[in-house]
Amino acid sequence: MLVDVHTHVYLPRYASWLRSRSIAPRILVNEAGEERLLILENETSAGRPVGPDYWDRNAKLNFMDQHGIDISVVSFANPWLDFLSPPDAESLARDLNTDLEEYCATSPCLPSSSLNRLYGLGLLPLVPGISISSVLQAVSQIAKAPHLRGLIMGTKGLGKGLDDDALDPVWKAIEEKGLVVFLHPHYGVDSSAWGDKENGHVLPLALGFPFETTTAITRFILSGAFDRFPSLRILLAHSGGTLPQLSSRLASCIDHDPIVASRLKHDARFYLGKLWFDAVAYGPEELAFVSEIVSRAGRYESGSTNTKTLADRKEGSRRMLFGTDHPFFPPLSSSEKWKSVVENLEAIDSVAGWGEDEREGVRAGNALTFFDIQ
Amino acid sequence: MLVDVHTHVYLPRYASWLRSRSIAPRILVNEAGEERLLILENETSAGRPVGPDYWDRNAKLNFMDQHGIDISVVSFANPWLDFLSPPDAESLARDLNTDLEEYCATSPCLPSSSLNRLYGLGLLPLVPGISISSVLQAVSQIAKAPHLRGLIMGTKGLGKGLDDDALDPVWKAIEEKGLVVFLHPHYGVDSSAWGDKENGHVLPLALGFPFETTTAITRFILSGAFDRFPSLRILLAHSGGTLPQLSSRLASCIDHDPIVASRLKHDARFYLGKLWFDAVAYGPEELAFVSEIVSRAGRYESGSTNTKTLADRKEGSRRMLFGTDHPFFPPLSSSEKWKSVVENLEAIDSVAGWGEDEREGVRAGNALTFFDIQ
Repeated sequence: MLVDVHTHVYLPRYASWLRSRSIAPRILVNEAGEERLLILENETSAGRPVGPDYWDRNAKLNFMDQHGIDISVVSFANPWLDFLSPPDAESLARDLNTDLEEYCATSPCLPSSSLNRLYGLGLLPLVPGISISSVLQAVSQIAKAPHLRGLIMGTKGLGKGLDDDALDPVWKAIEEKGLVVFLHPHYGVDSSAWGDKENGHVLPLALGFPFETTTAITRFILSGAFDRFPSLRILLAHSGGTLPQLSSRLASCIDHDPIVASRLKHDARFYLGKLWFDAVAYGPEELAFVSEIVSRAGRYESGSTNTKTLADRKEGSRRMLFGTDHPFFPPLSSSEKWKSVVENLEAIDSVAGWGEDEREGVRAGNALTFFDIQ
Repeated sequence: MLVDVHTHVYLPRYASWLRSRSIAPRILVNEAGEERLLILENETSAGRPVGPDYWDRNAKLNFMDQHGIDISVVSFANPWLDFLSPPDAESLARDLNTDLEEYCATSPCLPSSSLNRLYGLGLLPLVPGISISSVLQAVSQIAKAPHLRGLIMGTKGLGKGLDDDALDPVWKAIEEKGLVVFLHPHYGVDSSAWGDKENGHVLPLALGFPFETTTAITRFILSGAFDRFPSLRILLAHSGGTLPQLSSRLASCIDHDPIVASRLKHDARFYLGKLWFDAVAYGPEELAFVSEIVSRAGRYESGSTNTKTLADRKEGSRRMLFGTDHPFFPPLSSSEKWKSVVENLEAIDSVAGWGEDEREGVRAGNALTFFDIQ
């Protein structure tokens, strides 16, 4: 069985908004009469191809069939509602969450099963100036929708990031409802970092996206949010960006900065064991490493006497979940299997130190448990 | 035996420059009469303590004795000459390289050995507007200095980064002379990423530094520089930042961007096997992971038929070298051993899958070979 937890959609209502805009994010028609998606204002190229894979449910189901994916937990693609005024964000969030519930609820079931093939992650009207009560209403709406299992969230919060104390009531509500937060990047880092050379989308996507996710979740951890909301369930896009590789450096820097050290109950590495990670890292060594970092987290609980140093990859695999990033990274030829999917599946199959139990867990079982799909 | 390849100095001549300045980088005297180092203009705090550990050779030797370090390969601390005019950068580079050679040459020898305890990495006058011939003169000066083994370099190059074609004659000269390039960050990323919350130096140091190194070496790789200069020997600070964890994602993004894919001879992961990594990552799992990523690099050579997937950590350990980052990250109490050093040594001792040979290599042997110290 195969469950895809990282797969995006622009529902038709959202695509219409993008078509109506004259600045990014927008969908435009180029000189060849083709629709193109311009996702950031400073994109160097003429955007990227956009089509039915982004909004047509049959295209999503065809993609799933082509790659043996039984169930997809579909989330809205970036940049969500970030660019809207509070009233527009509020009403579009409500309508899109309704649309997504219907998109999932009316999808076909799995053969000989009562499980749907599509579940969803809604969104919140997180924009500067919105009232917290509007955000909490969206949390309630999502919690009541039978096929929505949580929400996807960018890194801006109410404009000041995810370490903004004003978000505490939102985290509290999400925690109480048991919803999943799928944390996903959009902005990268300041594009001056990429220099003058023509490198297409490689640098912002390969580096900027993971840098942004890493920064957002690190700021969240440093704010002490996991000490205040210990049952919050956050899934990190792209296998946690670079947080795993930087986590011991982060702990060391905190050790040398009393302001932060005195704020946190535990060593920074402990909090990585409270996170979930998609398995969208394209290589087996990367997946293995993330599973080690999660496995070791318990050693860093305050007061822990666990000094085990031998790497254990099995325990950590329980917090890793297969994903595709569809419809991004399409193949260059339309008939072939998507290389990004094939690579991520091969990576799961190739992790040294995982048995068939761990591989099956990452492919499907962990997601069924995490999203309470049964 | 223990060799420290990541240990910095502000020689007295350089400290004097910093004291003479009224904007960062500068050394100022605060209200309590203590010297403080202000390294970036936008630092939120009142800088950091600075003292003899930064410029007094006896302090360096005492630190080495306290931690059992036999040999240090000393490099200038950031921001080097980045803030100077071309004439000042040129003359200060020449003088500082002379100073550093003397600093090393007149240092004590190891007991019963002809080896010095101090070797050095010089610097180049890499600033916007400098003539390439001035830079090449500095390369020649370093190559002729008996105790200098290479140079430390930031990420700006001549102002346009390390993927600037104008640097090709510099790489060629460095490669021909067999000098080591120690690539080190200074600027981080745009500080707006860190938000409003008071987190001391944690975010720019723990995240910004590795992001900068990762971006610089990735841009270097994407420019095809390793295809043009395959014998260039680059040592990456802080265990390569986040390049190891992002390398398969990088390869996948390149696959989907023909502009870059057609420029490179090999899969991006191949080039990680051409790099060296200090072992300044503060955790055993991080070191193990870097060694796996280096070990696997050969699989990604163009035309390779090696499909081995089981992780091998031993081969990759040969390109990893112990370091301390002294005099940064001092302990909170002056009498204790530096925690950052103890943690990095413990990490080397705790890597699962390394034998005593690999641990000894990372502690000393790899560095002796890499820097040709014999």
